[in-house]
Amino acid sequence: LLAENRITDKSILFVRNIQDLDIGMTMEPVPLEGWQIELSGLIRPYRVVFHAKELLDMEQVEYEMILQCSGNGRNEYGGIKGTPWDQGGVGNVRFAGVPLKAILDKYKIEVDPQVRYITAEGRDAAMGLEKPDLEHSIPIADVLERGIIALRLNGEPLPGIHGGPVRLVIPGLFGTMQIKWLTHLKFETAESPNFYHATEYRVPYTLLQPGEKFRFTLENSRPTWDIRLMSYILQPLPGAILTAGQVTISGVAYNDGKAPVESVLVSIDHGKSWTPANFDIPESLYSWYEWSIEKNLAPGNYEIWARATDALGRSQPLDGRIFWNPNGYEWTGVFKCDITVE
Amino acid sequence: LLAENRITDKSILFVRNIQDLDIGMTMEPVPLEGWQIELSGLIRPYRVVFHAKELLDMEQVEYEMILQCSGNGRNEYGGIKGTPWDQGGVGNVRFAGVPLKAILDKYKIEVDPQVRYITAEGRDAAMGLEKPDLEHSIPIADVLERGIIALRLNGEPLPGIHGGPVRLVIPGLFGTMQIKWLTHLKFETAESPNFYHATEYRVPYTLLQPGEKFRFTLENSRPTWDIRLMSYILQPLPGAILTAGQVTISGVAYNDGKAPVESVLVSIDHGKSWTPANFDIPESLYSWYEWSIEKNLAPGNYEIWARATDALGRSQPLDGRIFWNPNGYEWTGVFKCDITVE
Repeated sequence: LLAENRITDKSILFVRNIQDLDIGMTMEPVPLEGWQIELSGLIRPYRVVFHAKELLDMEQVEYEMILQCSGNGRNEYGGIKGTPWDQGGVGNVRFAGVPLKAILDKYKIEVDPQVRYITAEGRDAAMGLEKPDLEHSIPIADVLERGIIALRLNGEPLPGIHGGPVRLVIPGLFGTMQIKWLTHLKFETAESPNFYHATEYRVPYTLLQPGEKFRFTLENSRPTWDIRLMSYILQPLPGAILTAGQVTISGVAYNDGKAPVESVLVSIDHGKSWTPANFDIPESLYSWYEWSIEKNLAPGNYEIWARATDALGRSQPLDGRIFWNPNGYEWTGVFKCDITVE
Repeated sequence: LLAENRITDKSILFVRNIQDLDIGMTMEPVPLEGWQIELSGLIRPYRVVFHAKELLDMEQVEYEMILQCSGNGRNEYGGIKGTPWDQGGVGNVRFAGVPLKAILDKYKIEVDPQVRYITAEGRDAAMGLEKPDLEHSIPIADVLERGIIALRLNGEPLPGIHGGPVRLVIPGLFGTMQIKWLTHLKFETAESPNFYHATEYRVPYTLLQPGEKFRFTLENSRPTWDIRLMSYILQPLPGAILTAGQVTISGVAYNDGKAPVESVLVSIDHGKSWTPANFDIPESLYSWYEWSIEKNLAPGNYEIWARATDALGRSQPLDGRIFWNPNGYEWTGVFKCDITVE
């Protein structure tokens, strides 16, 4: 399905919610009326509350961008608990909204130079005391550079299930950082000690052995912020049976948008030789790159490999399990697709 | 010259000293007699001084490893001041000495858990007041894991010019971090504000435009600690004129030793296709990998490219200038070698 459209439709876009929230179960938009957003922390004035509907009158900015769960590809690691994501937790979408920078300007908010993170909280306290709220701290530079409070997804009002009426969206970051049902932005000097931020949705600074126990702290690990470089083969699909001859192999690749993807190399001989795929650099560095390559395939079984490299020299490990981590986040291994040619 | 031997002889090993020190000008060893090393800072007891010659009676550990100036390849960036290094500031050597961990054990030194860096200082105060001393702070985990106080280079007593009689050596780090003429190790919670450590020998966290001004601070940059992934073509040499037919292309590759180098891809068609070179993984992850590949070359002009990737998916940018920095450190661009085939 992902292969058919450059922009992923909301009807097939993945959904990963922590809480069971009424408005989190609907594909319908959620009224802006009555929705308030609070800003507080090391700012002057120290607290500002505004109505989300005021955002409608401000200039909107749109990003074509990757929306990807940090647990996408988790199954590849092996032996990981949690939602068993294969590679479907990713889409290329368009989010539109108001830059946070413009909001600070409008309400004449001054940010203390000591502020290093913005901690974003959504309306998810309705579940009662047994579960903590979800919030994430994000480096302030990223939020001020390109963070928006999003009101629209793919040109339509944001559906409740994708965080409507308002979601914090920062292109280049993993989906969990794009806080849904946004209610509160806190300007802080340190990362939040919140359960989800300080002990979940993190990866260790050190390499672990598969199965190794790890107790996450703010010191020994980092949040799953920046999207990891990935390439996918979307055509043919794994298990496909093709007719011998000229075959089109195509897919997508993307990274965190910090530098362009530079090459996607494809191998049909287990890495003995690699051929660069064709692609154009998309207008938005935060969206995916559609690549393709023609190969003449004789009958036989093939494992097609795809490996992206970006202009910063970041590439994908042949064996992605080198980054094994208890929650299976940030899979970035070379994509391998088994097919049969008859 | 580098191509001829796996281990780089001291007679051709590069030299880069900050100070003009008497013992820094000699290829001869320097007597250990009278040389003292001080340990201080957040340790118990708070100050320990021992004689370097006591190290001779302790168990020695030897590393085969890369010794590379962080300014190596500086010329490739273009428009950089400082010693105009091409690609000759690197060698593969053997350092032997006593692990710092064994020294802490011997003198029953307890390190406070708050300590994050060891700041190493060498005997370089002789130049008078106009120049600051050279010292560097190194993450304590690296020093305790594999740091040695080295007494020997390539099986012989350490020549004065390479830091003899005693040098702090941590495999995987750039040469500047291997403090020569070691006199003092300070156990500290923060990085040293020393001129060379806090404002030189650093790279910005952000990407710069070539020529851009940058004022280095401990907050906006990191020290040139870990050796960057590199591959070199050593045969043929740039400008070589070869006879058409079967040609051997060979070279070396290395990284910081955190994971094995996984592949060296060679292209003779400007990246239109890549072929993996052959190599064995060396016994020491900190040494270089000798790789080679056979190519059948018809008459013409070629630009041979070599690009390494390691098991962590780290690779080399096609255009290394993306990491342009004012001092030209940590060049990691794809190696390109022009040759003519007749």
